[in-house]
Amino acid sequence: MYDVILKKRQGIELTDSELQWLIHGYVAGDIPDYQMSAFLMAVIFKGMTPKELGAFTMAMAYSGDMVDLSAIKGIKVDKHSTGGVGDKTTLVIASLVAACGGVVAKMSGRGLGHTGGTIDKMESIPGLRTELSEEEFRNQVNNIGVAVIGQSSNIAPADKKIYALRDVTATVDSIPLIASSIMSKKLASGADAILLDVKVGSGAFMKTIDDARLLAQAMVDIGNANGRIVKAVITDMDRPLGQAIGNALEIAEVIQTLKGRGPQDLTHECLVMATHLLVMSEKGDYDNCYSMVQTALQNGAGLAKLRELIVAQGGKGQVVDDTSLLGSARFTYDIRASKAGYIAHMNTEDCGIASVMLGAGRIVKDGPVDMTAGIVMHKKTGDAVVAGDVLATLYANDESLFEGAEKAYVQALTIGTEASTIGETILGFVE
Amino acid sequence: MYDVILKKRQGIELTDSELQWLIHGYVAGDIPDYQMSAFLMAVIFKGMTPKELGAFTMAMAYSGDMVDLSAIKGIKVDKHSTGGVGDKTTLVIASLVAACGGVVAKMSGRGLGHTGGTIDKMESIPGLRTELSEEEFRNQVNNIGVAVIGQSSNIAPADKKIYALRDVTATVDSIPLIASSIMSKKLASGADAILLDVKVGSGAFMKTIDDARLLAQAMVDIGNANGRIVKAVITDMDRPLGQAIGNALEIAEVIQTLKGRGPQDLTHECLVMATHLLVMSEKGDYDNCYSMVQTALQNGAGLAKLRELIVAQGGKGQVVDDTSLLGSARFTYDIRASKAGYIAHMNTEDCGIASVMLGAGRIVKDGPVDMTAGIVMHKKTGDAVVAGDVLATLYANDESLFEGAEKAYVQALTIGTEASTIGETILGFVE
Repeated sequence: MYDVILKKRQGIELTDSELQWLIHGYVAGDIPDYQMSAFLMAVIFKGMTPKELGAFTMAMAYSGDMVDLSAIKGIKVDKHSTGGVGDKTTLVIASLVAACGGVVAKMSGRGLGHTGGTIDKMESIPGLRTELSEEEFRNQVNNIGVAVIGQSSNIAPADKKIYALRDVTATVDSIPLIASSIMSKKLASGADAILLDVKVGSGAFMKTIDDARLLAQAMVDIGNANGRIVKAVITDMDRPLGQAIGNALEIAEVIQTLKGRGPQDLTHECLVMATHLLVMSEKGDYDNCYSMVQTALQNGAGLAKLRELIVAQGGKGQVVDDTSLLGSARFTYDIRASKAGYIAHMNTEDCGIASVMLGAGRIVKDGPVDMTAGIVMHKKTGDAVVAGDVLATLYANDESLFEGAEKAYVQALTIGTEASTIGETILGFVE
Repeated sequence: MYDVILKKRQGIELTDSELQWLIHGYVAGDIPDYQMSAFLMAVIFKGMTPKELGAFTMAMAYSGDMVDLSAIKGIKVDKHSTGGVGDKTTLVIASLVAACGGVVAKMSGRGLGHTGGTIDKMESIPGLRTELSEEEFRNQVNNIGVAVIGQSSNIAPADKKIYALRDVTATVDSIPLIASSIMSKKLASGADAILLDVKVGSGAFMKTIDDARLLAQAMVDIGNANGRIVKAVITDMDRPLGQAIGNALEIAEVIQTLKGRGPQDLTHECLVMATHLLVMSEKGDYDNCYSMVQTALQNGAGLAKLRELIVAQGGKGQVVDDTSLLGSARFTYDIRASKAGYIAHMNTEDCGIASVMLGAGRIVKDGPVDMTAGIVMHKKTGDAVVAGDVLATLYANDESLFEGAEKAYVQALTIGTEASTIGETILGFVE
């Protein structure tokens, strides 16, 4: 292990077998934490070559269960976001892709800190189960073309152990280490084709487009080196996506979006990503697939697919007709503008934290989540406001939470005197 | 601790109290190895500012006993070498300095690997004790001006613990970490003035003059920041010093040198370093002190002081008259030149290893040492040889060791066809 650390420190490329030995030995407990943490810190400074990263990630994937989706017909596609605020694209995209004949066999995660998680959001739908047996999962995808479930506990245990160590040794924010962490789980989850949504901006882990592009390329390279079709879109997370933050509120927005009445930014991102997934599913070229997706949105096929998905996983299908069945928070509170101007910037992470303060997210792993709490934003970056306008409505089941959340939310906004233009929300594509 | 690691990773200067907290917490076991190793690896890449290094080292010094030499009159001087092959300067210098009125209260170490240690060498003198009580030590220095003893076990325990971790996490060869390791022990050992002998070349840890200079400057800065007078000489270790390698053989060479019949390189280095120590003892300017030292060598005062030192520590004083009292190895073996030429280079570490193979050094800490084993070199870098010349004589108590040691020694030599000039052995001075 000494030699492996020293080679990494000196920037000498490690062999596949050295990296496999490293991961295997660490999971087995033969390599102590203090050697792994020194190795990880050396990676912070010296990085990893594409070849190293491919082998390191695959070794992490193979440290636990490798999900076998071969009993499911067709090209199984997955979509993964690096995490954002108000990012409820998964269910919109999965519904549209499946409605167009794509095969979506997806494992999702839970929220932590300022970012939400699809599994939490889905559980705001009454009755819906996110834990299916392998057989149920397989059958559901074969029957209706889509299933979205929680990640099983034995996916990439090496990543869990390494992540816990990174978390206490200041080695989290490293592009190769982030890339290998995400991709080890994706490779283990068994999809044939994966579309990565790499978020960039004040609500994302990547703060600059350059870093986002490096991370995207690293992950695409890992996937390709391991025989998967992987592409990545880089999307804006310098303001929250859509209008809703919070679990049930976001599911309601998913439904609105599939009815063609969703926020423009969210709708656009979903159409583009669903199109890429259909292209990866070999359903046609980009223009053809885009038309298919647009049609599925307009004619209600996507919404119908969402209803099927909900019902198949035990949930109440009527929520797509009546979102009040999702329940609602006992209290609401309007945040009003104190002066006129334009919203120049939103610190998106802080918007997410305001929502967490209302109960919508969790501060610690496995903490509780209030399904009906959250924020609906009425004004976002680029919008003009006059004094007294409602900037956002807060939802909570405890009125005393409003004061702190309002303060946090207002501080997250920068009100300027000049109109700012909002650029594209899709910032790049990496393949 | 996370924040301390992150700050170091980002190159933000740590405060004195953060570094004190770090060392204290690590020794107390509150900070786990895996966090310390990540910190150390970050130091490898980001270094330490002089201010950080001063505080870090002092915290390490204060982790154990701080030796109090205030009951000894005068300016207590110490000399410390970073370790070499054939480096027996300590006893020559200590004798000369004390003979000239300097006060030498010195703690020394044992050999490990290819480098020897003064304490081992001294123990080849029959009867000599290297463990004295504090009172014995104090009294001896007050009486005769010199004592050389082993380092007590509770000097800088933080360094011991950190060194053990560095040893298994590929974080040994870092100038700030080496500097703090050496200087923490020196600061704890209580001398007022310290002359460092930083070795450079194939037998030293520092391979280039630039690295040696950086290490020397780092150590001088640490000392000065902590109220000690510290200066450093940079000396050549690209060939072994003197002719003898091995404990009793080196003591015999010390005695020869104090009789004015020592090898030129060894004698010169000892004169220069003894002079610096006398200057630091405020005995005069460089030229005056050099004359004093030279006189003490020529008139036998230095040799007389060595005899006093040996007797005071329980050893047989007659060894200075009759070095055969040191004992001798049962077997000797002459290595002869197979062809004519010039010795172009000696891999000095490998010369040291050849000596270890004969039993003169230890491979593992606390391993056994054969006092009478070793090598006497008859030809060194720069010397002309003809086929059949004796290059070196090996000494061992087991004849079977000669074959391997000869092979190692011969491989360490490069015989060329052109005469090479040997430069100065004192390569620099840092204060």
